[in-house]
Amino acid sequence: MKVEIWFEFASTYSYLTVCRAPALLEEAGVDFLWRPFLLGPIFRDRGMETSPFVTDGLRGAYMWRDMERRAAHFGLPFARPGTFPANGLQAARVMTAALQEPWCGAFARDVFAAQFARGQDISDVAVLREVLAGQGGDADHWLARSQQDDTKAALRQATDRARELGIFGAPSFVVGDDMFWDDDRLEDAIGWAQGTPH
Amino acid sequence: MKVEIWFEFASTYSYLTVCRAPALLEEAGVDFLWRPFLLGPIFRDRGMETSPFVTDGLRGAYMWRDMERRAAHFGLPFARPGTFPANGLQAARVMTAALQEPWCGAFARDVFAAQFARGQDISDVAVLREVLAGQGGDADHWLARSQQDDTKAALRQATDRARELGIFGAPSFVVGDDMFWDDDRLEDAIGWAQGTPH
Repeated sequence: MKVEIWFEFASTYSYLTVCRAPALLEEAGVDFLWRPFLLGPIFRDRGMETSPFVTDGLRGAYMWRDMERRAAHFGLPFARPGTFPANGLQAARVMTAALQEPWCGAFARDVFAAQFARGQDISDVAVLREVLAGQGGDADHWLARSQQDDTKAALRQATDRARELGIFGAPSFVVGDDMFWDDDRLEDAIGWAQGTPH
Repeated sequence: MKVEIWFEFASTYSYLTVCRAPALLEEAGVDFLWRPFLLGPIFRDRGMETSPFVTDGLRGAYMWRDMERRAAHFGLPFARPGTFPANGLQAARVMTAALQEPWCGAFARDVFAAQFARGQDISDVAVLREVLAGQGGDADHWLARSQQDDTKAALRQATDRARELGIFGAPSFVVGDDMFWDDDRLEDAIGWAQGTPH
């Protein structure tokens, strides 16, 4: 079975997953789909104005320390950005427009690195333009595509689908009828997809 | 360094930890301390009347499914009990009274199994009596000890200490100045205690 990787560009733990997942999935011989979506509308459905890591000081402080440790463990650079959560709408639209492109996973990884390794503001189109250019792509083309109505509608549909699946956080992994939440369940999701529950 | 294992008898993921931790820690050559505490007072400090798994339907449904999968993965029997969260006060008092006894870890494990494998009500003294008897201990003696003022005070002090440490969930692992939350961080905590961050 395939693993659907549901992620949100503002999510710290999604950074770990987007960096870790491709190699682990390839090694396991498991196919996957990137599923960018927006967590903000789902939080608002659930009566939350922003991330619980902002409204809950204890969980927030723990998350930043945990991210430091986990990123170091996986060999990923990490620095707490000045703004959290970022507005990931524009990045998610570019990713949605580019889902059929072979470089879209590298684009996502580099957007996360801009945010969580270099502290850049990913709502700034100049940052996305730089990331796109780094992929050797036509930044103007993809930024224009990201603003088209069909792209906006596709991202809204993805978020609606996340709601239907009962997704409440990011990253989440969907394998058949099963859902796994958070980066620390990535290996479980891959094992599940192999039919050998991990 | 030692690993302090902070757990709450009503907590589903604490069941996994109490069953898994002793063998993993022994294999790693890392010492540990059981630290039973009550999560209810900490939830109330934080404005929550009960477990978020009760008040948040999506997270609750996910947790039960996740527990089924994780317990199966670790080879542990699991059945959702009729009452959740249980009142773990009496069990925590017995554990607190018996912390110097070599059988206290087995007692904790068997209380969790009564609750999460056989659906028994651990607030029922008859259930605790049966578990104590299964350890070959003097159930009357330990139930009496659990009701003494020094035992009650020691459990209150443990819960106050958990608050000071910034603990907000169970299980949590404390290693020196670092805290790790939830069963899925047990291996990280052990690696940290070994000085080779996992």
